[in-house]
Amino acid sequence: MHYGYFNGTIAPTTELAVGITDLGLLRGYGMFDYFLTYNGKPFQWDWYWERFRNSAAQMHLPLPLGKEETYAVVMQLIEQSGEPDVAVRFVMTGGYSADSISIEQPNLLILTEAIHPVPPVQYENGIKVILDEYVREMAEVKSTDYKRVILKAPDIRAAGASDLLYQRGGEISELSRSNFFLVKGDRIVTPNRHVLRGITRRTVMELAAVDFKVEERPVLLSELYDADEAFTTSSTKKVLPITQIGDLTIGDGKVGPKSQYLLERFNELVQGW
Amino acid sequence: MHYGYFNGTIAPTTELAVGITDLGLLRGYGMFDYFLTYNGKPFQWDWYWERFRNSAAQMHLPLPLGKEETYAVVMQLIEQSGEPDVAVRFVMTGGYSADSISIEQPNLLILTEAIHPVPPVQYENGIKVILDEYVREMAEVKSTDYKRVILKAPDIRAAGASDLLYQRGGEISELSRSNFFLVKGDRIVTPNRHVLRGITRRTVMELAAVDFKVEERPVLLSELYDADEAFTTSSTKKVLPITQIGDLTIGDGKVGPKSQYLLERFNELVQGW
Repeated sequence: MHYGYFNGTIAPTTELAVGITDLGLLRGYGMFDYFLTYNGKPFQWDWYWERFRNSAAQMHLPLPLGKEETYAVVMQLIEQSGEPDVAVRFVMTGGYSADSISIEQPNLLILTEAIHPVPPVQYENGIKVILDEYVREMAEVKSTDYKRVILKAPDIRAAGASDLLYQRGGEISELSRSNFFLVKGDRIVTPNRHVLRGITRRTVMELAAVDFKVEERPVLLSELYDADEAFTTSSTKKVLPITQIGDLTIGDGKVGPKSQYLLERFNELVQGW
Repeated sequence: MHYGYFNGTIAPTTELAVGITDLGLLRGYGMFDYFLTYNGKPFQWDWYWERFRNSAAQMHLPLPLGKEETYAVVMQLIEQSGEPDVAVRFVMTGGYSADSISIEQPNLLILTEAIHPVPPVQYENGIKVILDEYVREMAEVKSTDYKRVILKAPDIRAAGASDLLYQRGGEISELSRSNFFLVKGDRIVTPNRHVLRGITRRTVMELAAVDFKVEERPVLLSELYDADEAFTTSSTKKVLPITQIGDLTIGDGKVGPKSQYLLERFNELVQGW
């Protein structure tokens, strides 16, 4: 059973509920973070904490707990879950508001959840994504604003795709919930603008730097045509190959050796975490 | 005491709470509507219902209740509140989601709330707003996305202003939660694009058509310089004069006779509702 922390109280997640004057609910004023544990330990905890702190600061939300206190809560929830490994979700909103618009005191939720791994067939065949002309507002903040991809879910399904790849004016940014990479010869290329600074992205960039030239820069749609491989990264997806983007087949349409190599390096890292 | 309806149950609003897998809370996937009663009757009910239905359709959310059923719930909540007049808030979200992203069944809340009238001094002096380069996504849908104005609250306060006036590329759209009008001679002008179709806006356009030429069209920032008056409309604000926009004083900086005239016509209408 999974438990959650809500403003100082720990309870089974099925019993947790948020009052209806919450600004996350009424006004979409919320942020979150999400990470996995490996061998019972939060993966890249320092980096996740830093990002959560930055998101909070940019949304003018004071953190109710410090880093050490938060870590203690996380470890207690992991232990109470009884699972060897879990997903951990932080959600922080503008809190309860008497006038439905002004921030008084944030609401902070910390939850453990079951991990939903990517189906193995997606690693074997790669995924298809479709292009969408869009850029996330304040992309570097992990806000709760995912209206776009939920609205587009019927289009994604109709195209037999798994996700959206956002571009605007021909410049690629990211997928709806994960980062984007291209492989060209010995170069690994990833967009530097209008993206969430993914922790898996950062980890993969570090791992890749051993064997590849890693380029973080604006990436244009036109570069898709001569790319050898493409992949996406997130805590859940790890390194997941993208073999089709709209009507365009990437490389030979099969999962490429370099994406596979990076996935193996990533799996080695987390197995020894 | 105020009561609320939540997925078939009526309870005091202070006891209502939403489970933590709600897509409104986790993913900002929610919409709402808000109106007042006059003489115990919902103002412009047909128009509000129509807008709520349109917002729901555009967000792919099936309505759990029909128009007559909803009206019956609203009337029961008004009666239970014991107040002569109340505000009514509808909130509908993507509902509880097992995978935190897919819509299963919407959650619908219907609440009565105390009316928070605009302080009389704002009608006497008019308000100040500041310009913000921004346009709401899907402005015609009354989504719960109000991140922008909450983020900018410190800037609004620092400027001694009450709200933002959104413009992009020199074209004015709306305030953060209300519509925008200019008065020029015998013409009343309001933006036609990137705006929520306000019910008070529509009511005021109808009232104004008796004595003025009403123009619904793109409105440019440059038109502020020779406007006689400006005002904003919403269910709470009714017809509220704007006397300053950033550093620019509108007209002579005092509340103008035509804004005042329209407010009087509006007040007559609602008093006889």
